[in-house]
Amino acid sequence: EQNKGRVTIPTDIDVIADTLELSRRWGADAVRDCDGTDFPVELKDAGMKVYSTYYTTRKDNAWAKANPDEIQQMYVMTPFYTAADTTLRIRLMKGLYPDMLTPNVRDDIRRWWEVIDRTTGEVVPVSDWSYEEEAGEVVINSVPFHDYTVSFLAYILWDPVHMYNAVVNDWKDVEHQMTFDVRQPKTHDYTMKRLRKFIEEHPYVNVLRFTTFFHQFTLMFDELAREKYVEWYGYSASVSPYILEQFEKEAGYPFRPEYIIDQGYYNNQYRIPTKQYRDFQAFQRREVAKIAKEMVDICHEYGKEAMMFLGDHWIGMEPFMDEFKTVGLDAVVGSVGNGATLRLISDIEGVKYTEGRLLPYFFPDTFHEGGDPVKEAKFNWVTARRAILRKPIDRIGYGGYLKLAVQFPDFVDYVESVCAEFRELYENIKGTTPYCVKRVAVLNCWGKMRAWGTHMVHHAIYFKQNYSYEGIIEALSGAPFDVKFISFDDILENKDILKDIDVIINVGDADTAQSGGEWWCNPEISSAIKEFVYRGGGFIGVGEPTAHQANGHFFQLANVLGVEEERDFTLGYDKYNWENHDHFITEDVKGEIDFGEPGKFIYALEDAKVLVSREQRVYLAVNEFGEGRSVYISGLPYSFENSRLLYRAILWSTGDEENIHKWFSSNYNVEVHAYIKNKKYCVVNNTYEPQTTTVYRGDGSSFGLELEANQIVWYEL
Amino acid sequence: EQNKGRVTIPTDIDVIADTLELSRRWGADAVRDCDGTDFPVELKDAGMKVYSTYYTTRKDNAWAKANPDEIQQMYVMTPFYTAADTTLRIRLMKGLYPDMLTPNVRDDIRRWWEVIDRTTGEVVPVSDWSYEEEAGEVVINSVPFHDYTVSFLAYILWDPVHMYNAVVNDWKDVEHQMTFDVRQPKTHDYTMKRLRKFIEEHPYVNVLRFTTFFHQFTLMFDELAREKYVEWYGYSASVSPYILEQFEKEAGYPFRPEYIIDQGYYNNQYRIPTKQYRDFQAFQRREVAKIAKEMVDICHEYGKEAMMFLGDHWIGMEPFMDEFKTVGLDAVVGSVGNGATLRLISDIEGVKYTEGRLLPYFFPDTFHEGGDPVKEAKFNWVTARRAILRKPIDRIGYGGYLKLAVQFPDFVDYVESVCAEFRELYENIKGTTPYCVKRVAVLNCWGKMRAWGTHMVHHAIYFKQNYSYEGIIEALSGAPFDVKFISFDDILENKDILKDIDVIINVGDADTAQSGGEWWCNPEISSAIKEFVYRGGGFIGVGEPTAHQANGHFFQLANVLGVEEERDFTLGYDKYNWENHDHFITEDVKGEIDFGEPGKFIYALEDAKVLVSREQRVYLAVNEFGEGRSVYISGLPYSFENSRLLYRAILWSTGDEENIHKWFSSNYNVEVHAYIKNKKYCVVNNTYEPQTTTVYRGDGSSFGLELEANQIVWYEL
Ligand SMILES: [Mg+2]
Ligand SMILES: [Mg+2]
Ligand SMILES: [Mg+2]
Repeated sequence: EQNKGRVTIPTDIDVIADTLELSRRWGADAVRDCDGTDFPVELKDAGMKVYSTYYTTRKDNAWAKANPDEIQQMYVMTPFYTAADTTLRIRLMKGLYPDMLTPNVRDDIRRWWEVIDRTTGEVVPVSDWSYEEEAGEVVINSVPFHDYTVSFLAYILWDPVHMYNAVVNDWKDVEHQMTFDVRQPKTHDYTMKRLRKFIEEHPYVNVLRFTTFFHQFTLMFDELAREKYVEWYGYSASVSPYILEQFEKEAGYPFRPEYIIDQGYYNNQYRIPTKQYRDFQAFQRREVAKIAKEMVDICHEYGKEAMMFLGDHWIGMEPFMDEFKTVGLDAVVGSVGNGATLRLISDIEGVKYTEGRLLPYFFPDTFHEGGDPVKEAKFNWVTARRAILRKPIDRIGYGGYLKLAVQFPDFVDYVESVCAEFRELYENIKGTTPYCVKRVAVLNCWGKMRAWGTHMVHHAIYFKQNYSYEGIIEALSGAPFDVKFISFDDILENKDILKDIDVIINVGDADTAQSGGEWWCNPEISSAIKEFVYRGGGFIGVGEPTAHQANGHFFQLANVLGVEEERDFTLGYDKYNWENHDHFITEDVKGEIDFGEPGKFIYALEDAKVLVSREQRVYLAVNEFGEGRSVYISGLPYSFENSRLLYRAILWSTGDEENIHKWFSSNYNVEVHAYIKNKKYCVVNNTYEPQTTTVYRGDGSSFGLELEANQIVWYEL
Repeated sequence: EQNKGRVTIPTDIDVIADTLELSRRWGADAVRDCDGTDFPVELKDAGMKVYSTYYTTRKDNAWAKANPDEIQQMYVMTPFYTAADTTLRIRLMKGLYPDMLTPNVRDDIRRWWEVIDRTTGEVVPVSDWSYEEEAGEVVINSVPFHDYTVSFLAYILWDPVHMYNAVVNDWKDVEHQMTFDVRQPKTHDYTMKRLRKFIEEHPYVNVLRFTTFFHQFTLMFDELAREKYVEWYGYSASVSPYILEQFEKEAGYPFRPEYIIDQGYYNNQYRIPTKQYRDFQAFQRREVAKIAKEMVDICHEYGKEAMMFLGDHWIGMEPFMDEFKTVGLDAVVGSVGNGATLRLISDIEGVKYTEGRLLPYFFPDTFHEGGDPVKEAKFNWVTARRAILRKPIDRIGYGGYLKLAVQFPDFVDYVESVCAEFRELYENIKGTTPYCVKRVAVLNCWGKMRAWGTHMVHHAIYFKQNYSYEGIIEALSGAPFDVKFISFDDILENKDILKDIDVIINVGDADTAQSGGEWWCNPEISSAIKEFVYRGGGFIGVGEPTAHQANGHFFQLANVLGVEEERDFTLGYDKYNWENHDHFITEDVKGEIDFGEPGKFIYALEDAKVLVSREQRVYLAVNEFGEGRSVYISGLPYSFENSRLLYRAILWSTGDEENIHKWFSSNYNVEVHAYIKNKKYCVVNNTYEPQTTTVYRGDGSSFGLELEANQIVWYEL
């Protein structure tokens, strides 16, 4: 049926008629509940699959209260305090929302807490501090004018996502949903029974939509209930003495709180990961997969599907790692914030289907008087579509309160058109790999584990410090390349992986996990990459690529890149190479290139060719190294123009300029994707205005074309 | 005599009449020759002291050619080369002007050269490389895709300053003046005789103006005779096997070329100095002082004065270090590029008088058709005058070709007014210490050794990377503070030095000698400074103060400063403190404050008060810490407005806001200086326009005043 399928609609008990009407118009074949809504049983026979949100770790305060020792925990570090004397008092809950967290004094605090002298980096012996529970303060025998922090375990008394939803929706008098830890024995046992009971009591449910499994990404709130700390990839809330003792046994060395606390940086993904943190993540992946599989198996036993929401309590699942496939999930659903987060879902292997929850979420932050949900929806769809055309998700869907959406008829209309367009393009491209011009690898400390999510702090949220780098990832998400994410470890393990790569991209700030920092001082790594380029490979460095101060360089591959960063140490060297040159890479540039945030003092070495320098700062330069080529870009925020620049940079770096006019649009607002196996290709206008272009087919033949705003045109081959 | 004295005029054989006329108008009481001019003996009885430029290390090619083993040498590092195979050839003279340098193969190259694998940082054994003299290439048994450099000793066949003068003045067919090394036995002996001979042959000379002593600051030229590398503080050209063997004996450990080469950074003053480099500098100071004293003693024996030009071959003299006083010099003369370089001369102790050579130098780069020497002179004088009013030089002078200056009558007039004004202010302030509002210490790795010259690469030359920091030093050079430069070592040696300080300033980029880098991880240092502030001291951090990535902070004194730099590791922390506040420090600000170069992502901690943030970057913030106060400034290029801002920051940081209206001008273009002992004070208009202001005396009483452009008005107390 052309006009039905591949769409999930949210519902609630107060919008039954609307659900039926909209599911008809949108062609929805699945219906779901959401946090704060209830599924109306009247809809169980409406001809749609029924998804039921399932919370493994909350929505059962009776259990939580009866088993306070198995409430979930997280590691928290206090702010830094300077001792003015030989005694220092640190109040643990400073800066934390009191209803969400409470220090765990049930377990041995001398074993699980850590007081650190941050001036020396040394642990303060447990004999030199104590906890005054009434005051909530740790009292330290301190060295005057040293700085101290306390790392402690806290129980999570209010699930952070439930709290977030309650705050955003201004829920009054809602009982705070407490968390419980499925990893621990009593709750583990209870959880499996609870799942069975739920399935038995909801026979009409077809799909258990786990939101999610066991451990929330790191999310804390301050005294004013404002977000205090967030990291979508953070493991800080996946701990408990029970878990950590298991970890110790497996790792073979004693656990230290600092392995999670990491000086207060919480091992965020910008940090070059320590061995201990990688060990811990690997341990968590194995343990989480084991228990998730138990739950999935129960679903299957009852003939239900198991779907995982890639968000909230997803920590440890790591869908790009090997353990994930062993869980046996039927599906993954995730929020689509842009092209990169679309690929975060659609690139997952080992499930039967993937679903993207499009934006906007039907919450009052968008759906209010004066709000413009259509604008948000258009932006979201056009952004996601680029990536879908490279690697489709199998379904789309929406979430939130349908009653809010129905108040915006234009929005309902627009979603109808999106659903139809999605079904059409899915039919056209399913089962094929689109034509790839080059094989591109993004090289960093994380590799495939953070594929598409490198540079992400909170899910698809803009940060001033990283949009200039994230733009590279977003451009790649919809570009005709075979994109891999590889790590330095991958190269150490097997240098031959470089043989299947045309271009390596290293993008990020100095001394972060993204650019690699000290890894570039490993001769095996630097030599492998230099050889790769020397033998004809392409290298694209963005920001502070290969940067670590050592051995006379900040950019360790300065000889390859042809540029260096001035950190005052080479001011004495006169620099004469500033003149800008026209180049293949910048041929489609219309005005001033937007390189994003300013700040770096980059200069070109003698033999490099500068493409763009401004006021003694180089923003774009190219260099030849042996048979290979390198491109330096200071930053590249995502835009259609910049995507084209990156496209050209990739082609040039591989010496393949002459093949640019294949599956190509002269106008960079328009893209061409070919699906050889299905004998189809499409031309897609990514903008909200009509566009004119010349379209080049794979044989170089061309034709002129005018496209309407957002239009996608399909052709047979 | 009111209209005569304290002025030195340059001359030449072709401008005798002009010299007499101008010396009358300018009130010159001394006359001098310069590089490329000759002193006309006709002037020896013109009633002026006669200075004679004396070159200890050049202008005697016969000697140099006869003693090629005692030609001066410098350490040079080649560029970095990547080996593509197991053999790598490196041509030593790549990038160097061939007539200036030539590799020293006379001494044992296996002892004095070093081939380094810059990928591993390891020295390549001498058995793995050889030098092919004909090709001028070092041939290395290399590891494929490792980078290599060669450090070698080269003879200086053309004195770099002579070469510079020849290139700038387009001298044709001039014989290249070779250098010779006064430290070595034959030349040492010869030099003393040569000096005696010179004095005896020039009985009319009163002052030997040594230009300078023995070792040129680091200065190299490339194949196109363009400046390649320059560091006014660089010691790279002060070496020879003879010297280095002496050094080894004194230091008690073997010398390595790398101690000078420093990965190609040549120990420039931004580098945190190594122990070996400090040892070498100390050794040089002692040895240079010894031989300089020999020459000074000879001058005195003949009844002549000995003057040192602070420039060119001044390396090792270090006028702020203890050895300097032992030399017994009568005078120091130096070029005045701005207020800071004025203080570089006038703050020198241990000589009878100091002289500032004002700009412009009478060279064709300024004195040509269409040139505007008056403009340059005005700028130079008004800039220097600020600093002179704080700490006067005893004389002023000019240099270059007088015949060029006489072609600009307006310039001659302007210099006449400068000379008169200088004499007046000198009379008014001589012998006194002007009133100081606060005691300010600039804290870095160098302390007094680089007083006023911190952030200087080439003498008073602008650098885009450091004008935002140099502005602080320039502002201080003319401000009513008692300014000290202290080092981290000084604090380690004696913490009590902090008791004589009101405000500490730490200014510079992260991990440089200026900000201090790893020194801030020394608990003795960080605790001492924290205690200083906690007990009521002021702390002003500019740029990346106290910055080194460690222990959960980039700014090690973040708790004191109230700000941190975002290097991606704290992106997960929500930041709510961006609102700008009015403040005492910014009360005189008229428009947008110019903070200089953008680039740093600074954010404020919870309790700090933000004064200026723009687009999620903090530029100015204040914080309280115990009894003390801290001010963060991202950068502060020199201007009258910014000087006022710094003035206010210093006052505020000491909690002394209520005393601002003492010896103060409401208009920041005008400054007030009091000389209590001489019962005088002056009001000075630093601008080229008339100004109106309210002047506050030391008792807080005030009066209105209108000043002409550049006017200085003197009052009795
Ligand atoms: Mg959610
Ligand atoms: Mg220069
Ligand atoms: Mg000179």
